[in-house]
Amino acid sequence: MTDLITQVAARRDLSTAPFLVAARGGAPERVPVWFMRQAGRSLPEYRELRKGTRMLDACFDPAMVAEITLQPVRRHGVDAAILFSDIVVPLVAAGVDLDIVAGTGPVVAAPVRDAAAVKALPALDAQQVDKVADAVRLLTAELGETPLIGFAGAPFTLASYLVEGGPSRNHELTKALMYAEPDTWHALLDHLADTALTFLRAQIAAGVDAVQLFDSWAGALSLRDYREFVLPHSTKVLSGLADAGVPRIHFGVGTGHLLAAMREAGTDVVGVDWRTPLDVAAKAVPGSALQGNLDPATLFAGDDVIRREVSRIVDEGRAAPAHVFNLGHGVLPETDPDVITRTVDFIHTR
Amino acid sequence: MTDLITQVAARRDLSTAPFLVAARGGAPERVPVWFMRQAGRSLPEYRELRKGTRMLDACFDPAMVAEITLQPVRRHGVDAAILFSDIVVPLVAAGVDLDIVAGTGPVVAAPVRDAAAVKALPALDAQQVDKVADAVRLLTAELGETPLIGFAGAPFTLASYLVEGGPSRNHELTKALMYAEPDTWHALLDHLADTALTFLRAQIAAGVDAVQLFDSWAGALSLRDYREFVLPHSTKVLSGLADAGVPRIHFGVGTGHLLAAMREAGTDVVGVDWRTPLDVAAKAVPGSALQGNLDPATLFAGDDVIRREVSRIVDEGRAAPAHVFNLGHGVLPETDPDVITRTVDFIHTR
Repeated sequence: MTDLITQVAARRDLSTAPFLVAARGGAPERVPVWFMRQAGRSLPEYRELRKGTRMLDACFDPAMVAEITLQPVRRHGVDAAILFSDIVVPLVAAGVDLDIVAGTGPVVAAPVRDAAAVKALPALDAQQVDKVADAVRLLTAELGETPLIGFAGAPFTLASYLVEGGPSRNHELTKALMYAEPDTWHALLDHLADTALTFLRAQIAAGVDAVQLFDSWAGALSLRDYREFVLPHSTKVLSGLADAGVPRIHFGVGTGHLLAAMREAGTDVVGVDWRTPLDVAAKAVPGSALQGNLDPATLFAGDDVIRREVSRIVDEGRAAPAHVFNLGHGVLPETDPDVITRTVDFIHTR
Repeated sequence: MTDLITQVAARRDLSTAPFLVAARGGAPERVPVWFMRQAGRSLPEYRELRKGTRMLDACFDPAMVAEITLQPVRRHGVDAAILFSDIVVPLVAAGVDLDIVAGTGPVVAAPVRDAAAVKALPALDAQQVDKVADAVRLLTAELGETPLIGFAGAPFTLASYLVEGGPSRNHELTKALMYAEPDTWHALLDHLADTALTFLRAQIAAGVDAVQLFDSWAGALSLRDYREFVLPHSTKVLSGLADAGVPRIHFGVGTGHLLAAMREAGTDVVGVDWRTPLDVAAKAVPGSALQGNLDPATLFAGDDVIRREVSRIVDEGRAAPAHVFNLGHGVLPETDPDVITRTVDFIHTR
């Protein structure tokens, strides 16, 4: 409890910030918006800053994390900052031997494919992500009235990287382990739930105002498999933060069939990709706040199309008690930053 | 009509073949099974035969197409052969400058991104796919009682290759064209519908016993966009074959939200990926035969898991009037061929 009190004391009072009002299910003064991957690849100032610095080195450099996180807030005037990091950061911090290779993604030196490898996985200690906590503290001092969202990768998505050894299109080794060795699987996901929970608690203790659990690959599973093999572990993470005092967002891609289960994990906001209209999603998770869901490809189609789609989404979002505007997935690298800025401005007129 | 009579006359009488009985909605003597991508990458005899031959050269070599198509029939005893080809074959035949690059996929020399480029696209003449028709004739002479499935890529999936210039994860340029220039888009898809129709009619005239329209990427669209931008064109293809005398299969990945619309295009069998249980799919497209839907990753999980999953799927498939067993997507390259053979044997005991 002492920890919790310290956390709450450390956090800024942003109770009227539109993003936080909506994330708690209330009615904000304007439709709040932030974009997944708003920090990073699409911004020239990011590419300039990152020159000569490896991705993982950047993620453990508090000043650089803070600057990269701030760039899109300054440029676009979004309603929330999202901590610049990578979902493998807590694994690296714990001592897993992996690197992020430009053009490929995470590459794990020794993929985790049996009970012994799961048992050998190092646990994350909060002190190992001190640099990330430092970045959070730098950011809360700089962000003024803008909330900061922390995040972690969900157990299934982290497991896929560890089992496959890197990004995978079909997740075949991951699913084979899941089906063939359920005990090993559940031990792995339980371990990764602890990792995500420790990482998120450290971010919350340092002052983030909300958290998002990214289950990027969960949409590769049927509802049946999701419920049996994944939901208990994502629940451990999200329900474990129920008393932390910050709203929780739970997001995956291609998860139209999983929305109700993803809500059950214990979340304040359900993230929705562009395949499921928000009014349809509102029926799947009645009473829940929603986040989404402009197709990132729309940002390549010109302002008229963007305005039409934004208006449709804002209207559909009214079917939910509250709506945080976002893309249905991350900003694509080739996106014109000026288009993003104009889109934020337009959303704010709605 | 003369053409049609010639076609029907050329086709074998396989009216009791389990695959064709099920594809027509009837009750076959056993659960029929074939696997998408059963021909090709997973078979050592395929890799041996393809040595030194480029993919597109193989696709236009009737003897090689026939041999590759026959390999999995001999080895696994599946209930249908699927013509070995590639969805870009009709584009290449028509004169589009593209190559299939190993490890990358199709690469289009001049991507199609405006009205002028659409207008310049060459139409396919049936004679340009004579080599494919020759392969079909070789095959129907060799296949005995085993039906042969022809196939084509659907207009949306072909369009994505042409617009992006190759395989794409996010289809952003494709969607940008679709949203921003609907007239150009519809002209492109209408052209590609004609291409697919000509290609499928040539295969039917040469003797294939069924056809599958592959819309590999349709799952990247919302139902709303699918209906507006894609369905009319896939309907042109499938409904255009309504009187051709062969059952039609319509398949895409991640299309749980599109199944009813995909049926409306005019199909006898709706293909379902592993994310949607067949009993759920049966409710989405009542009265339709279904095809699917074992997760290809299951073939990496051992015989016990495979048998359990096969049994579940056969049971769930009973909710539909008829069920053609298949994977929920193509055979993955690393799949052990012996596992495939044992899986076919097990399905045949059900």
